[in-house]
Amino acid sequence: MGKAVFIRNAAQLITLKGSSTAPLVKEGMSELGIIKNGSVWVEDGIIQAVGKDEVLFEKFAVRIEQAEVVDATGKLVTPGLVDPHTHLVFAGSRETEFNMRLKGATYMEIMNAGGGIHATTKRTKLATHDELFQESFERLNQFLLHGVTTVEAKSGYGMEWETERKQLEVAKQLNELHPIDVVSTFMGAHAVPKEYKDNPDDFVKLLVKEIIPKVSELRLAEFNDVFCEKGVFTPEQARTILETGKVYGLTAKIHADEIEPFEGAELAAKVGAISADHLLKASEKGLRAMAEKGVVGVLLPGTAYFLMAESANGRHMVDLGVPVALSTDCNPGSSPTVSLPFMMNLACLKMGLTPAEVITAATINAAHAIGRASIIGSLEERKKGDVTIFNVENYMKLQYLYGVNHIDTVIKNGRVVVKGGRLVEKLSLS
Amino acid sequence: MGKAVFIRNAAQLITLKGSSTAPLVKEGMSELGIIKNGSVWVEDGIIQAVGKDEVLFEKFAVRIEQAEVVDATGKLVTPGLVDPHTHLVFAGSRETEFNMRLKGATYMEIMNAGGGIHATTKRTKLATHDELFQESFERLNQFLLHGVTTVEAKSGYGMEWETERKQLEVAKQLNELHPIDVVSTFMGAHAVPKEYKDNPDDFVKLLVKEIIPKVSELRLAEFNDVFCEKGVFTPEQARTILETGKVYGLTAKIHADEIEPFEGAELAAKVGAISADHLLKASEKGLRAMAEKGVVGVLLPGTAYFLMAESANGRHMVDLGVPVALSTDCNPGSSPTVSLPFMMNLACLKMGLTPAEVITAATINAAHAIGRASIIGSLEERKKGDVTIFNVENYMKLQYLYGVNHIDTVIKNGRVVVKGGRLVEKLSLS
Ligand SMILES: [Zn+2]
Ligand SMILES: [Zn+2]
Repeated sequence: MGKAVFIRNAAQLITLKGSSTAPLVKEGMSELGIIKNGSVWVEDGIIQAVGKDEVLFEKFAVRIEQAEVVDATGKLVTPGLVDPHTHLVFAGSRETEFNMRLKGATYMEIMNAGGGIHATTKRTKLATHDELFQESFERLNQFLLHGVTTVEAKSGYGMEWETERKQLEVAKQLNELHPIDVVSTFMGAHAVPKEYKDNPDDFVKLLVKEIIPKVSELRLAEFNDVFCEKGVFTPEQARTILETGKVYGLTAKIHADEIEPFEGAELAAKVGAISADHLLKASEKGLRAMAEKGVVGVLLPGTAYFLMAESANGRHMVDLGVPVALSTDCNPGSSPTVSLPFMMNLACLKMGLTPAEVITAATINAAHAIGRASIIGSLEERKKGDVTIFNVENYMKLQYLYGVNHIDTVIKNGRVVVKGGRLVEKLSLS
Repeated sequence: MGKAVFIRNAAQLITLKGSSTAPLVKEGMSELGIIKNGSVWVEDGIIQAVGKDEVLFEKFAVRIEQAEVVDATGKLVTPGLVDPHTHLVFAGSRETEFNMRLKGATYMEIMNAGGGIHATTKRTKLATHDELFQESFERLNQFLLHGVTTVEAKSGYGMEWETERKQLEVAKQLNELHPIDVVSTFMGAHAVPKEYKDNPDDFVKLLVKEIIPKVSELRLAEFNDVFCEKGVFTPEQARTILETGKVYGLTAKIHADEIEPFEGAELAAKVGAISADHLLKASEKGLRAMAEKGVVGVLLPGTAYFLMAESANGRHMVDLGVPVALSTDCNPGSSPTVSLPFMMNLACLKMGLTPAEVITAATINAAHAIGRASIIGSLEERKKGDVTIFNVENYMKLQYLYGVNHIDTVIKNGRVVVKGGRLVEKLSLS
């Protein structure tokens, strides 16, 4: 398993201790469990001890010479960041469409020029497994450089079995070969395919009768997600898809109330979804239902930023008791970014969250949103050795010095993978 | 002078050729003068040739072995970025005040806790020349890592002779010892000092009769700036200060119409200012006057972002014919950032500028805003060898892949100072 790693003497070590059972809410989101002059001993990929540097130094004194020591003096140490909502596996880039939009092109003009989700669907369908793997692997390297150690990844650029399977198999292989852990979500219900425009229920039937069972049988995903939005899938269709997924062992997630209020948040509470995501237009009633059931609200401030829309009211959600998490929504159409730290900054300045709350939202609450809180999201004994180190001396400064990537070091499964803001070795396919 | 540097085969080489005489306006701001497979030969700190790689390769074939070759294949090459508005030289950090603000503290609560500009004034006054120099030097390193090769720097955290002089002398020394060129602006009229609250005209008299003449005599600045805003300096006071500066050889700049419409833009046109900055609330009449006189509008989208305010209407200004430039406004109170590339992205998504326009705004138009367009801001023969290389293959992607620092290489005065996103050597004081 390689050397032990000893992270020493952080100016602030954010542990988020004791948050593994349920996501943090309200004032709880600001209780970071900070240790000054804090240290972490990681061995065999697992955190063995967390505490004051002087205590750990004494405890491990006889073994310190065999360990890789990471000096965190004057730095901020947090749990490895967790991104709970991405469309990681796709082919191609749509900057021309973005440029058209900024030059004032209408939605129809962009569509007629070959833009929109179908552009990505087409490219992803044509790409080979290896091409998709390579492109996504490179994207994961970029995530790592922004402090992220776990990424959820959705399928949904096929909306037919072959391409959906290809995406899910690529995600599976990425999980095996890239240092980042990739958590897989099936999202065949990402849009209604053109050929089903007049009979969307037939597409729902296809998902429910054929595709979801196959995904489950091949163990290609843990979660099942649906785009519940006016003109896409109705709450009734979404419910059918999500309930079927549950029967097949897939936990529900929902793209909810992004463009119009559509009772997505309510549905999330009703079906016992683990998270409801977007929520820009969620109703008060829906948000209260989520708070009551502990459904994590995954907020995607980058998507609003990139689409020039008003952000979700994160402040209000925290105050209502919704456990809030943050994500990039990484995808080629509405959020082509890998920077979860920038999402944290946007959440402060566009959603009214505080510098303390956004740390919780990008670590332990994000881990809860993908059912991983027992093994990642906080710095505690027996959790994975996933640690992110920032070149600032406190968590307020991380947001205050905005527009800059402050990542210094990333440790994944007890291995130093980013050092001085650079990948330690060229992470390659072999 | 060291080796020649040969930058080869950029996917897109943005020259902005022919823009040195007057700032670019309207459609002109989108004419980037792109060369595909473009190369640049820099020698003795100066650009000797710009053109197709095959042409330059032939021209310099016999000398290529003695040159440092920078392979820009697949990359975007632009003129070194120019930041025309910063408060670079200051001491201390105000993240606690920022945190209070996000937690809902009022302006008065922040003031009572020791926040606001006076916090920085106090720290800057107490700092020694060497401390200020060191802190600002480190900040310039960060600018370099974000592709910036020229920075304007204002005094204004003293508002009395000794501290103003200290700031200006630090800026001068930075210009001499740091690779980045630092262009100095006197801004004694940054706020009305407490002791002059009841007699602001006495402070104006002090500036006009004593301090401006000394600044001029000691050749400590090229520009003279004033914060013209309700409750700070009136247009009449600002005019007196700027006209006096002109008499003493200092070109006028104005912090104009940031918080309320106050005829700052009009004044800029009237006194022949080289730029008017902020302009969130500038009047239509004022903007038209600026367009007519060719006064550069320096927009600071980061400040609006950080203060959670509505951005200036950059789109409208470009359409009116105002030559628009972009800047970080780097300062510890309202914009603690060094990332001009992030300002470019904000200008697209919060001001409606296009990916092409923001390149012009951060290079040649910014150079015009500080009177340097004859030597920097475009890639042309006989200009300074200031070149920035981004890890993207076209200028649209630079904005599309948002939230990420894409800097790969920076060449300053013909010397490679950033490589692979890192400083080539530890730039230090010696
Ligand atoms: Zn999504
Ligand atoms: Zn300013």
